Amino acid sequence: MCAVPSNADQPNAPVILLSHPQMGENIGAAARVMRNFGLRDLRLIAPRDGWPNEKSTALAAGAFQKMSPIRVFENTPLAISDMQMVFAVTARLRDMEKPVFSPKQAMAHMSDALASGALVGLLFGGEASGLSNEEVAACDGIITYPVHMEFASLNLAQAVGVASYAWQSFYTEGAAGKTPISKEQSGIAQRSELEGMLRQLRQELTDAGFFYPPEKAHVMMQNLQNMFVRNQMTSQEIKTFRGVIKALAHGRGAGLAQNK
Amino acid sequence: MCAVPSNADQPNAPVILLSHPQMGENIGAAARVMRNFGLRDLRLIAPRDGWPNEKSTALAAGAFQKMSPIRVFENTPLAISDMQMVFAVTARLRDMEKPVFSPKQAMAHMSDALASGALVGLLFGGEASGLSNEEVAACDGIITYPVHMEFASLNLAQAVGVASYAWQSFYTEGAAGKTPISKEQSGIAQRSELEGMLRQLRQELTDAGFFYPPEKAHVMMQNLQNMFVRNQMTSQEIKTFRGVIKALAHGRGAGLAQNK
Repeated sequence: MCAVPSNADQPNAPVILLSHPQMGENIGAAARVMRNFGLRDLRLIAPRDGWPNEKSTALAAGAFQKMSPIRVFENTPLAISDMQMVFAVTARLRDMEKPVFSPKQAMAHMSDALASGALVGLLFGGEASGLSNEEVAACDGIITYPVHMEFASLNLAQAVGVASYAWQSFYTEGAAGKTPISKEQSGIAQRSELEGMLRQLRQELTDAGFFYPPEKAHVMMQNLQNMFVRNQMTSQEIKTFRGVIKALAHGRGAGLAQNK
Repeated sequence: MCAVPSNADQPNAPVILLSHPQMGENIGAAARVMRNFGLRDLRLIAPRDGWPNEKSTALAAGAFQKMSPIRVFENTPLAISDMQMVFAVTARLRDMEKPVFSPKQAMAHMSDALASGALVGLLFGGEASGLSNEEVAACDGIITYPVHMEFASLNLAQAVGVASYAWQSFYTEGAAGKTPISKEQSGIAQRSELEGMLRQLRQELTDAGFFYPPEKAHVMMQNLQNMFVRNQMTSQEIKTFRGVIKALAHGRGAGLAQNK
């Protein structure tokens, strides 16, 4: 499975909770990036400027219309009361007996819960002061990003973006690295086509006196061959390139037959 | 190994390139999140409102002072001319013979190159129209995020944030399954060498009347370019191939000077 755009929402995604968010713009931007990565449930805990907040609209870029209705709570205990598992996302390591996860580790940790239908929350603190110790204490664990120590403070919507990406990425790619989708493997030319092209190239280069001294022809052709084999050319590319060789070697108009 | 905040910059991180960015706010936000995750090299290609742009300052939150000086270029070929490897970050899958990577896969793919001292770029399009086909064609591969098909357009700074996180996360947490590397990545030619070869090829093919009808020259050259970019040619291979072009076009003995 590869990282092509995903078509459907996953049945169970974590809920994003923003505790005491201040700027409407960040709420809108958070919603947009949640939706980009297939999340749809956003809860706000005591937003400073109330809700709805018109400053959120432009940065949401239409995301609100494609999500579950946003729910607003007075405090964090109420907001997480129906959840089975909650992680606090915070850069500050606290002197608290909590397991600390990277985003990837947290996604692995919550995936079974999500698959079994549990409600899982990711709790983010507001712009000014982050999460309180009380809020972190109520969580099952801490998610910490691999940020630079001297510049550790992420924008709120960026923090939501990283978590949303990490979740979708876990779901889409799984834990292991996959090979790149270079192209349809069936599109790669058969080796015989490549060899035909290389024979043509060798003949034209021989005619042009390219191989000098002649006893080096073999190793020089091998280098060229390595280059083209590595390239995994398609049949169409080989046809085109045979036209290129012909045109270069025989001049004006000679390539046309290959390239009409 | 857990994702504790990292203390020092990694010696080699990719360079972020923003092509035709429009809003200063997004440039500032991109710089902030780059710095959060330990990146420090930002290049701007033809920013709409020029540079410096005071609207970027607030959202950068002091990041500019902790980065390398931002460099501004007139166009993308100039901006990538000293790079060995460039990935286009785009959600649109194009009908182009390019390898497509998830962020994780791309990080695995570039990590050896970075480790060997190569300059690697991540190219992002502007808010309005993204990257042109010409820009994508010049890249070694495409990085696509696992976005929701019906809401695929990320904010520019969020897109930079995901890539920055993915890179730091790869470095901090490691990743399984790297793709095999066939040669010293530092041996890959700089983009300007490849472009010189392509200019030569285009000139010789034009002289040979290869491009017919002439208005197809552009797309035909783009296909050839895709093929050669994919190939990650070394400087030596480019020299050899320039000799091949010369020998084919100008006949007996013409290639010798390139191949002694």
